[in-house]
Order: sequence, then structure tokens, then C-alpha cells
Amino acid sequence: MTGRRTKDDLARLSLNQETVKQWSLPELADGCAAAGLRHVGLWREPVQKYGVDAAAKLMREAGLTVTSLCRGGFFTATDPQKRAAALDDNRAALDEAAALGTDTLVLVSGGLPPGSRDLHGARERVAEALAELGPYAAERGVRLAIEPLHPMYASDRCVVSTLAQALDLAERFPAEQVGVVVDTYHLWWDDTVGEGIERAGRGGRLAAFQLADWVTPLPEGVLLGRGQLGDGAVDLRWFRERTEAAGHDGPIEVEIFNPGLWERDGAEVLAEVIARYREHVLRAE
Amino acid sequence: MTGRRTKDDLARLSLNQETVKQWSLPELADGCAAAGLRHVGLWREPVQKYGVDAAAKLMREAGLTVTSLCRGGFFTATDPQKRAAALDDNRAALDEAAALGTDTLVLVSGGLPPGSRDLHGARERVAEALAELGPYAAERGVRLAIEPLHPMYASDRCVVSTLAQALDLAERFPAEQVGVVVDTYHLWWDDTVGEGIERAGRGGRLAAFQLADWVTPLPEGVLLGRGQLGDGAVDLRWFRERTEAAGHDGPIEVEIFNPGLWERDGAEVLAEVIARYREHVLRAE
Repeated sequence: MTGRRTKDDLARLSLNQETVKQWSLPELADGCAAAGLRHVGLWREPVQKYGVDAAAKLMREAGLTVTSLCRGGFFTATDPQKRAAALDDNRAALDEAAALGTDTLVLVSGGLPPGSRDLHGARERVAEALAELGPYAAERGVRLAIEPLHPMYASDRCVVSTLAQALDLAERFPAEQVGVVVDTYHLWWDDTVGEGIERAGRGGRLAAFQLADWVTPLPEGVLLGRGQLGDGAVDLRWFRERTEAAGHDGPIEVEIFNPGLWERDGAEVLAEVIARYREHVLRAE
Repeated sequence: MTGRRTKDDLARLSLNQETVKQWSLPELADGCAAAGLRHVGLWREPVQKYGVDAAAKLMREAGLTVTSLCRGGFFTATDPQKRAAALDDNRAALDEAAALGTDTLVLVSGGLPPGSRDLHGARERVAEALAELGPYAAERGVRLAIEPLHPMYASDRCVVSTLAQALDLAERFPAEQVGVVVDTYHLWWDDTVGEGIERAGRGGRLAAFQLADWVTPLPEGVLLGRGQLGDGAVDLRWFRERTEAAGHDGPIEVEIFNPGLWERDGAEVLAEVIARYREHVLRAE
């Protein structure tokens, strides 16, 4: 009976492979299956290295669906050759997503080009790329999912910093082409995020829901300081409830970049993720 | 004639003393006067150490007005004793501001109490403190200036993260009691900040305008990584023009926390600030 409950309450949990970066793809497939998971989120680099079709087969045979592929994007270059190369690379990413059977390509929009201070212009170049890629994505049954990143990444990684801004961009295009990602790590501080989640749900734009906690002090470079669920300041349960109220009943993906987790045994980390997910995300207060 | 122009175009420039932390208060007074400045921004700790009345006299005799005192705030504790202590400390800060002749006490609101995930509750405690302190401030001719800090400080320093949020708070109170601070370092990434500046101007809420640039990579702890004017991603001229269009013709205060500046000769740093201010803030494109 516990086993039964266990399986049921993991029905929506997806493990993003960056959370257990120490695992190879076969270890990921085996480890997730052994823990009773049904979903994983994958990254392009390890998938390409293993082979896209082989990775797709591996996950399928382990009973795992792929909830998202990370990541496309980096659309903000002004140089025409760089822009063309970025579009080509994103078409390849969409092909890979389709081959893996996921309907979601997560996009990190890109930062300011070196020396530029033109945030507005950079954001418009993101829109131009979405216009270019949208039909190509829809033909493959994959959606471009704009991920607003925390404002601390606005200059060097992503000029889209809030959910409202991501929705302003997405809503210029059909909902089957462009959606948004709600990642608690990036959005938890925003007092308007609840309205944004509701708006995303209403418009059918909520393409992915990702979890990580916010812990301080931030490390140098601020890239790898995400917290294990429950270790930080984010009210994860509130986010689950708000996304559900907005109609999201799809995967809940845990994506934590944290070198402390990567040093440990992968199965132990996954067991901890599951326990924290039950305590801090699922359990009613 | 150059001397004349020089004096005129520095009429609004204020040097926040943290930018040249290596200087004692007498060095600050002498150095600013020698460089043709008319304004400084001060911090409580060095002023208290030197003596509030002595510091006031020192600045007055150097022909310098004090544009702001940093800082009050830290209003988010739940413990009643800590809350009472914070209010007492802010009353003392208001007295000090009045003694220094400045009309602006900059407030850093405070972060989440240890273990708390209740951002909304913390923000309401900020409002309660403002209600308590507003009349005391107005009696002294000093305004409480809510400074929205970059969202990367939301958990540990300041639960007020955007200008819109600061204005939502400020507008619950009379404009002569509570205003807001526009600091480019904290707000540059926000695509709604232009509207916020206009709203602040319209309501007579723009209490202080501070400048620092945004440079990456951020250092560990993200406190001391602010950039010299012109070194980073912020369109400082745009901010000056927008604040002017909103009716702000008061001081423009340069406040840069950067250990690289503190290691250098203070006069050299100030000369660089002035040159950068002319090039990146004042000069029309």
C-alpha cells in the first residue's frame, strides 16, 4: 500500500538530469526507474554525446518520458552570421526534442552583446528569432518555452527577467508555438508572479514548471548556487498550488545546479529529492 | 571658462562616501571641496564615530550639503523586541539625518527572518514600520526613502525588489513622509522601470537618484561588485533623462561598492567618477 501511494504521488515528478550531473545517461535511466520515477528532463550536450536516438530508446525502455530538453535560445547577437548560426542551432535542438519525444524546448534568451546597453533591442531580437522558429517548432510538435531567468543574469545570460515579460513575448505568437517556463528559483521574489501564473494558465502558455530553492550566500558567478528543495526561501507548495489553480497538471521538474549534490551518490541525491518533494511540494500544510 | 563650465556641470553631482570608503570624513570634506563638488551622501556608522554634530559642521564648512543618509530600515523581524529595537534605531537615524541637514533617510527594508518563506508578511511588516515612523520623520523634515534592492537580495537584505513595489508601499502614506530611491544598480534590468520613474515623479515620490553600473561576474555574496560608471551594462544617460522627464532636478548621487576603488587614491577615484559622470551621465549622445 505504501508502494502504491509512493508510485502515485510521484506521477508528476520529473528529474532534470543536471540535478544529478554525476550520472551518465544509462545511470540516469536506471536510477530513475529504480526510484519509481516516470519522467526526466534532459540536456542537449550529454544527449548529443550519447546519440539522440540511442538516448530516446534508453529512456523509453526505462519507462521514462522526456518532459523537456534544455536548452535552445541565445538569440541576442547582432552579428548576422552569429544570428544565422543561432537559428540553425535552435532548429537542430527542435529536431532533437522531437526525436526524444518531448514537446518542450526550454529557451535561455541570451544576454547583452559585448559593450551593448540596449536591453530593448536585445529583447526585440529574441522576438524576431521566435517568429522565425515558431512554425518550424510547431511542425515538429515541439513548443518554444521562454524561460525568464533571475534578473541577476540579465546582462550575461538572459534579457528576459520576469514572467510578465516572458508572457508579453510569448503572446505575440500562437500558443502552440511559444510558451513560458515557471522556474521557482528565478521567479520566487516577484510579487506579481501569482498574476503571471494565472495569465499563463489562462492563455495556455504554461509549458514547463521547474523547482529549485533559493539559498544564500550566492557563490561567485552566481550560476551554481541553487538549493535543494526545502533548504531555502522559496514557498514551493505555494507555487505548486498556484500552477495547479492555473490549470497545470503536467510534470513538475526538479532542476538544481549545485556542486554539493554532484559530489554525492546519485541515488542518494534522488532519494533526498523525492523526500523533499513529498514534504515541501506535495504535502498540504 | 572651462573652470566655470566644470563647476556648473557638477551642480547636481553628489558623492556617496561608500564610493571612497578609504577616506576619513575630513578627507572626504576636503577632497570633495577641492574637486568642486557641492554634495555628499553619508553613512551612519562613520558619522556616529566622528560625531554627528561635528560631521555636520565639517561638511557645512566645506560648502557641502548632505543629500542622503544611509541607512535605516531592517523592519522585517517578527520578534517584538527586535521590532521595537529597529524602530528605536530608525528614530535615531531620523534625528541624525535632521542634524546633518539632509531631507532623505535611505531605507533598506530587511530580508526574510531566518527560516521564514513569507515574503508577503515581511512586506507588510515594512508597511507597519513606515506607518509608525512616518509622522516622526515628517516632524523633522526628513523623508523615509524606500530603496528597492536588486531581487538577488530579496531573501537576506530587502524584500522590496522593484520600483513598482516600493511605490505601492510608499503610496499608502503621505508623500512628505515616504518616498522611493531610484538606484540604477538595482533597477536597470526591469522593463517597467521607466513607467515606475514616471509614476514616482507624478506623485512627488522620487526622493533620491543613485548611480552605479552593473558588471559581471558577480563576486561571492554579491555585495561588493558594483561597477564604476561606464564600465557595465547600465544605460545611465537614459536613467538621468527619464528622472529629469519625471521632474527630478535634485542630486545625482554616485554610490559604488567596489573594493577595487577602495584600494586606490581617493582623489584619483573621485576624478575618475567626475570624468565618467560627464561622459556617461551628462553628455548628450
